[in-house]
Amino acid sequence: MSERVMLAHGSGGTLGHELVERVFLKYFTDPLLAALEDATLIDLTDGQGRLAGQPVFTTDSYVVQPIFFPGGDIGKLAVCGTVNDLSMRGARPLYLSVGFILEEGLPLADLERIVASMATTAAQAGVRIVTGDTKVVEHGSADKLFINTAGIGLVPPGVFISATQASPGDAVLLSGAVGDHGLAIMTQREGLRFESPLSSDCAPLNDLVQTLLATGADIHVLRDPTRGGLATTLNELAGQSLVGIEIDEAAVPIHEPVRAASEILGLDPLYVANEGKLIAIVPADDAPAVLAAMRAHPDGREAAIIGRVGAQNPGRVVLQTILGTRRLLDMLAGEQLPRIC
Amino acid sequence: MSERVMLAHGSGGTLGHELVERVFLKYFTDPLLAALEDATLIDLTDGQGRLAGQPVFTTDSYVVQPIFFPGGDIGKLAVCGTVNDLSMRGARPLYLSVGFILEEGLPLADLERIVASMATTAAQAGVRIVTGDTKVVEHGSADKLFINTAGIGLVPPGVFISATQASPGDAVLLSGAVGDHGLAIMTQREGLRFESPLSSDCAPLNDLVQTLLATGADIHVLRDPTRGGLATTLNELAGQSLVGIEIDEAAVPIHEPVRAASEILGLDPLYVANEGKLIAIVPADDAPAVLAAMRAHPDGREAAIIGRVGAQNPGRVVLQTILGTRRLLDMLAGEQLPRIC
Repeated sequence: MSERVMLAHGSGGTLGHELVERVFLKYFTDPLLAALEDATLIDLTDGQGRLAGQPVFTTDSYVVQPIFFPGGDIGKLAVCGTVNDLSMRGARPLYLSVGFILEEGLPLADLERIVASMATTAAQAGVRIVTGDTKVVEHGSADKLFINTAGIGLVPPGVFISATQASPGDAVLLSGAVGDHGLAIMTQREGLRFESPLSSDCAPLNDLVQTLLATGADIHVLRDPTRGGLATTLNELAGQSLVGIEIDEAAVPIHEPVRAASEILGLDPLYVANEGKLIAIVPADDAPAVLAAMRAHPDGREAAIIGRVGAQNPGRVVLQTILGTRRLLDMLAGEQLPRIC
Repeated sequence: MSERVMLAHGSGGTLGHELVERVFLKYFTDPLLAALEDATLIDLTDGQGRLAGQPVFTTDSYVVQPIFFPGGDIGKLAVCGTVNDLSMRGARPLYLSVGFILEEGLPLADLERIVASMATTAAQAGVRIVTGDTKVVEHGSADKLFINTAGIGLVPPGVFISATQASPGDAVLLSGAVGDHGLAIMTQREGLRFESPLSSDCAPLNDLVQTLLATGADIHVLRDPTRGGLATTLNELAGQSLVGIEIDEAAVPIHEPVRAASEILGLDPLYVANEGKLIAIVPADDAPAVLAAMRAHPDGREAAIIGRVGAQNPGRVVLQTILGTRRLLDMLAGEQLPRIC
């Protein structure tokens, strides 16, 4: 087999089949995928023919550049991102689809490394890759590779978590420090070196979410602050729930290397993408238990209560700054970091 | 709003929200999508809390070039392709996800035309677009736009249609003429003009499939001969079912303009992609009823019985040529028409 992706790998013919067998099926070993049907039969039942929860469906495409970065790669990101989107509804992620768009000339070794990374991450998250597709475009018509994942999960009975459910009196929790993913990508891209290396926080959050659900707390909202960062995501939540959100700047965890790199690059870490953090909004009474559960979990050790929900300023986010002043924390206006995910 | 896609449209910030509201939500009007949650709750029940069939899941990315062509566009293709993949398991297609990868500089008018086309096609097929994602990459890092769709459908109880189910004694039916999609793309791309215009056959096939199921015939296999054309798809089926397939060349419907264009371009229409045709493999006794049902349906008027399944030459396809000779019909070896879908 050639050592680079060729247009004929996307033809549907013999070379396409060779690519599927030698690269994809080597790592994606689920028998449902290996059947290579046009569409895959999946099981959503509890074993007695009844639905085991309410199905949820999501999709994301991934175009991050560079495709390998400290703490991850585009494949790991493509699995985590979709697992996390399902998890933010309280769902248990079950099945993923994977669509590759490959640029002619991509080294097959790079593709294989990414496919292996996706398989490892999917196994870690307990999610099955069961259907897929590969297209190849001419050299110069894409940048190395793009990946789409769609996902299906099941929300347990009695759970209703939605961006619309934040209520005055709720507490706002954050599962850890912000800015790591975006700054890791940015410094890698710009060839910058810092004393303390920056690493993406890219991680599947489904286990953390299951831990939070197990507390029995009445979780209103979960959301992962990806593109646009914490500030943009909080603005979305304030808008979708029609509430005001107030954040204590001093309470938002930020790793020191992120803070330092942000200053040098002129970025505000509150607007920088994260790929392994979540915002949880819960009744104030439930907040201590949820915080304790987060901190006891490996993916939430640095969790903090960072603010509260109120009825004033609906749709707005107000920042109580370190200096003691208050200012509006707007949604991201322009484009800070293209192709961050 | 700018008249072209900008990087900031992919930021997740205000411009991204503007794009979603002014373009996507203008045409994709499903309330499940409009909620803009990280993942969408979907209903797969029969109204009494029980699953209404066996769920199936599929995905495809679409990179066709040019993005507008006679008989369709990349958006119509992205809906039809995934609807058809679900239909080839006998499923009723219910929900689609849509992931866009946009090149900076794409005219918003082109995007809007494609989004409108997707909405129209989805409505025609009775499938709901319920979740989506948009990424933007720099000018030169993609070619105009790529679309991924994933789909979920339900297979009615008692139906098991699979590429593994072809059996010796079965008849092979084709729902209409081959080569139209590929030749329409090719002539458009090359700027060729023929006396009779060529037009893609791109169409959702779910209604035709429901009609075939309604005959009560014991349908073994359904498959749409897309990339690699009829010849490649038949080879896949012969391999997956471990049977031999024999095709009568004279019985395969080919439109005259397709035949003429193929000769000029040096293409074999049996290897050219179709986007609105299906192969059905059924017991010989059921073939007349299935053929009659196809011909009575607007998407199957030119249907024909084109061959039969045998036990000899397992994994192989043999062509009985117009000249009366027999030859192996191989899988597509190289790349005939890149970016055909």
